[in-house]
Amino acid sequence: MDECIISVILGSKSDLEMIQPCLDVLTEFSVSYELKILSAHRQPRRLVRYINETSKRKVKVFIAAAGGAAALPGVIAAHTTLPVIGVPVETRSLKGIDSLLSIVQMPGGVPVACMAIGKSGARNAALFALQILALNNKKIADRLAIFKRRLSKPVK
Amino acid sequence: MDECIISVILGSKSDLEMIQPCLDVLTEFSVSYELKILSAHRQPRRLVRYINETSKRKVKVFIAAAGGAAALPGVIAAHTTLPVIGVPVETRSLKGIDSLLSIVQMPGGVPVACMAIGKSGARNAALFALQILALNNKKIADRLAIFKRRLSKPVK
Amino acid sequence: MDECIISVILGSKSDLEMIQPCLDVLTEFSVSYELKILSAHRQPRRLVRYINETSKRKVKVFIAAAGGAAALPGVIAAHTTLPVIGVPVETRSLKGIDSLLSIVQMPGGVPVACMAIGKSGARNAALFALQILALNNKKIADRLAIFKRRLSKPVK
Amino acid sequence: MDECIISVILGSKSDLEMIQPCLDVLTEFSVSYELKILSAHRQPRRLVRYINETSKRKVKVFIAAAGGAAALPGVIAAHTTLPVIGVPVETRSLKGIDSLLSIVQMPGGVPVACMAIGKSGARNAALFALQILALNNKKIADRLAIFKRRLSKPVK
Amino acid sequence: MDECIISVILGSKSDLEMIQPCLDVLTEFSVSYELKILSAHRQPRRLVRYINETSKRKVKVFIAAAGGAAALPGVIAAHTTLPVIGVPVETRSLKGIDSLLSIVQMPGGVPVACMAIGKSGARNAALFALQILALNNKKIADRLAIFKRRLSKPVK
Amino acid sequence: MDECIISVILGSKSDLEMIQPCLDVLTEFSVSYELKILSAHRQPRRLVRYINETSKRKVKVFIAAAGGAAALPGVIAAHTTLPVIGVPVETRSLKGIDSLLSIVQMPGGVPVACMAIGKSGARNAALFALQILALNNKKIADRLAIFKRRLSKPVK
Amino acid sequence: MDECIISVILGSKSDLEMIQPCLDVLTEFSVSYELKILSAHRQPRRLVRYINETSKRKVKVFIAAAGGAAALPGVIAAHTTLPVIGVPVETRSLKGIDSLLSIVQMPGGVPVACMAIGKSGARNAALFALQILALNNKKIADRLAIFKRRLSKPVK
Amino acid sequence: MDECIISVILGSKSDLEMIQPCLDVLTEFSVSYELKILSAHRQPRRLVRYINETSKRKVKVFIAAAGGAAALPGVIAAHTTLPVIGVPVETRSLKGIDSLLSIVQMPGGVPVACMAIGKSGARNAALFALQILALNNKKIADRLAIFKRRLSKPVK
Repeated sequence: MDECIISVILGSKSDLEMIQPCLDVLTEFSVSYELKILSAHRQPRRLVRYINETSKRKVKVFIAAAGGAAALPGVIAAHTTLPVIGVPVETRSLKGIDSLLSIVQMPGGVPVACMAIGKSGARNAALFALQILALNNKKIADRLAIFKRRLSKPVK
Repeated sequence: MDECIISVILGSKSDLEMIQPCLDVLTEFSVSYELKILSAHRQPRRLVRYINETSKRKVKVFIAAAGGAAALPGVIAAHTTLPVIGVPVETRSLKGIDSLLSIVQMPGGVPVACMAIGKSGARNAALFALQILALNNKKIADRLAIFKRRLSKPVK
Repeated sequence: MDECIISVILGSKSDLEMIQPCLDVLTEFSVSYELKILSAHRQPRRLVRYINETSKRKVKVFIAAAGGAAALPGVIAAHTTLPVIGVPVETRSLKGIDSLLSIVQMPGGVPVACMAIGKSGARNAALFALQILALNNKKIADRLAIFKRRLSKPVK
Repeated sequence: MDECIISVILGSKSDLEMIQPCLDVLTEFSVSYELKILSAHRQPRRLVRYINETSKRKVKVFIAAAGGAAALPGVIAAHTTLPVIGVPVETRSLKGIDSLLSIVQMPGGVPVACMAIGKSGARNAALFALQILALNNKKIADRLAIFKRRLSKPVK
Repeated sequence: MDECIISVILGSKSDLEMIQPCLDVLTEFSVSYELKILSAHRQPRRLVRYINETSKRKVKVFIAAAGGAAALPGVIAAHTTLPVIGVPVETRSLKGIDSLLSIVQMPGGVPVACMAIGKSGARNAALFALQILALNNKKIADRLAIFKRRLSKPVK
Repeated sequence: MDECIISVILGSKSDLEMIQPCLDVLTEFSVSYELKILSAHRQPRRLVRYINETSKRKVKVFIAAAGGAAALPGVIAAHTTLPVIGVPVETRSLKGIDSLLSIVQMPGGVPVACMAIGKSGARNAALFALQILALNNKKIADRLAIFKRRLSKPVK
Repeated sequence: MDECIISVILGSKSDLEMIQPCLDVLTEFSVSYELKILSAHRQPRRLVRYINETSKRKVKVFIAAAGGAAALPGVIAAHTTLPVIGVPVETRSLKGIDSLLSIVQMPGGVPVACMAIGKSGARNAALFALQILALNNKKIADRLAIFKRRLSKPVK
Repeated sequence: MDECIISVILGSKSDLEMIQPCLDVLTEFSVSYELKILSAHRQPRRLVRYINETSKRKVKVFIAAAGGAAALPGVIAAHTTLPVIGVPVETRSLKGIDSLLSIVQMPGGVPVACMAIGKSGARNAALFALQILALNNKKIADRLAIFKRRLSKPVK
């Protein structure tokens, strides 16, 4: 399934633990991904250069996690027409409500798909990316169907 | 472009004006869609029946707008593995912060892609759906590229 | 008191500790109940099937606890005309304000009786269910009167 | 259906318009009710006297609407073991989030069933009261079933 | 200074630690006080009886601390024309914002003087009570002046 | 009743309409007051000079209304040991939640008695000041008792 | 005073009315400025190109106003070491609390100086820019001193 | 670089740990600063006296950190036309949202430059002060350019 590449970008190295459930799902579904730490505020040029390159490679979906004044997902969306999924990182003081509003309240014209704050959001970002890819990938679609069935099993 | 069907579901008839920017974008891109008013709380069986049927037809993406205890997008996501995009409707008292949290804070396993509160979110829901479809539809991809270029023109 | 059945439904296994004060009160009052873990988002069909069955059995009141985009109480209320009591679970990031708004802000036509966030709410959910049953059950009414009197004793 | 009395108490005369949907539902279901304006802060003795009297009459459920530091539903609940349903009134500055928290965050031992802020909550308070009464009133139960069916009709 | 009595009322035994800074200040100023645990929701009659008695004794100011749906200060204010000072207790989930709004948003006609959430508020409740008493008590006024001067000393 | 002087200070001329209920109550009770417009941020020296003077005159209580970063009540409290009552003014964007937190969250050592946001708070500020004065003024105490009785009359 | 150039950037044409108090102050102080409408999300390349050019011209301070997911001030700060002042625009649903958090919660390393929401913030952005320039411009410093004195005049 | 003096003022001794990142940056850039603990509420006269003195010395920028009803930055701004940078301190109950609103919502005419809550804000306060000084100090400007370049290095 090498042809399906997802680009996962973190605003900070400290977000690594929080994004793990996202990476786990991608690994579980054998979908190849690329993990980058590129802050919209600290490495803006490097970030744009990276986005431009990916558009020439096989990246189909972006997943971006950031906290506080979380500009990362929106800045990626500003530079691409590929789907961008945003994951708000829980912050120390405001618990991620700042990250959430900074990601979800995008202006008309530049959509970002916002997930829940924290690890549930990280996991769902991967699943949502897979749901997008599954529209044209029978293998992923089949695996998602199995995943869905397993999810609906009774809890003991 | 008949093959691309988007299902737009509203929780209430009163959300019609707010969803208009979404429908306008879909019309502008000549992507066919189906508009339904089906509340997760008032017509739950009818809603599930409708979701099940669409999975047999050519629906590829759901857009769902709801306000208050906005269960609609999550309930759709519970019954499908197709991508579901949620639009929080502005509410009278809490201005949509209730709708936003009810849509975005989904548990791990069942993703919903949340947009901004209100008309910007409605417009972006359509654009995000198009970005998904564009991954395998050259025509839509080309039009999105043109849209993006026009968007970046200087404002006078 | 076998004739009084209360159905207690949790959105997640992790809510078990939080719902304990509810179960304790029901046990203390010798009112029989049934505890189920059924997510509105993960086991939607199983949940609806269960609600339908209970309506044929002797269930009189539902108590539902859920966190985040807490659709569970509302989805139950959508499928029954029995009273549904909702308990918002404290969440990691937003501390249950998301759960609270997702449960309390129900649209007109489909009521859910919302309790406080967390363990106080869990305990009160049981007491409120008992207050409902007490309207036609002298034994429970008498016990509630005793409980009320004990509650009003001076604190030492 | 004279035997079913619901007591509807408002914290202020200015809440009359907001409670109308509640009264309309009760009238529609031919359930007799009593409407009182009794502030927990301005007429505390009169309020307690009234609650004590009702317990000797045929009142079975209380519905209480109040705004701001909305102590009314909780104070009623403090003086009765009958079910108390609270409706948060939208306030000028804080839009009812103050009323909501003052009503819903009750301590363990003294439950209040909180509805949504404003008119939806008012309407649902009546419906929830009816759902309680329906447990032992076939007529109301039948009418609720009809109401539920009508609610689930497709929206045109 | 026996003639100056302050009545300190807590909504719950668990608020004892939080109110300590209040008691410490009163002790430091040698102002006699009475500490009671009387919940507006659990011991409503006992509470009203106590307020009525104090009005016959030498109580001049009430200090009331409560959390969540914190009706206590408002209920005291409903039964007296003596000054009532409210201290919002920090709550587990909502951190006292529920307590704060339940205490501060009193309706016109029944004032409560709200302090900060938690221990700072507890300490200031005592100081504010002393400022009130100082208007007609030279000893307290002199001590407050000394306290104020000490407070303004440079921090090392 | 010339001997009872209350100093009412507004942070801005635009707060005049909002403070009217406060002035009306003082007039109704024939308690003399002084109204000043003195911003803590724009006229800091003039404000401090005024506070210092009042301490030499017969001012016994300060009432201060301010909006946004509402430093006024706290700054007055910093310069006096007389009781300071703060009234949060409703603001355009944040509706007074900013004013409320700026006034109520005072540090230990410097109390401000916070009232509700807006006109109810303004009215209660006057009543609370009267409650303070009534502790040593039989006339005001008697009038407050009459006011309280009138308040508790049934609402028609 | 041609040598002092301030660059004022708006995220949207609709912010023009709100920024007027800022422009008025700059005009009043005869400080030349340049007004641009450049969205961080819609014209990202044009924006960066503009920032890069200004660094070669005489721009000394940036003022940036944006609403919702207000990335603009942060993106400018990412590309320059000149001082960036951010003004949160009031938004329809969330009243600017989203804009405020998106601007103020910047990560360590990339400061943005955040002003109040709306027109007060717009006016203060200009004044703060002037305070910066005044450190090395006697004329501006003198005019600020006059402005300050006028501000402290008594309000009639 | 003796000629560049920054005055760092804390509202409380307990803010010392939180301001450390600010002091570290200033030390790293060899910019001399003066650290004072002066509460706007506890040492108001001492604070004003200090501000007046600094205006005669070489202080060019103020950095003020405070929590809760955080009047400090605004009070400094009221007494000077030098730039004032405010850092909201995280508070126990409200996590600094009270400090943030008390600092950022300044009225028109008296600007304060607000940074993020907590240590990121402390660090950025120093950097923003340096950006101001850099406008007329080539050494600081050069060091900031180096700092910016280092910041943009890839994260490993």
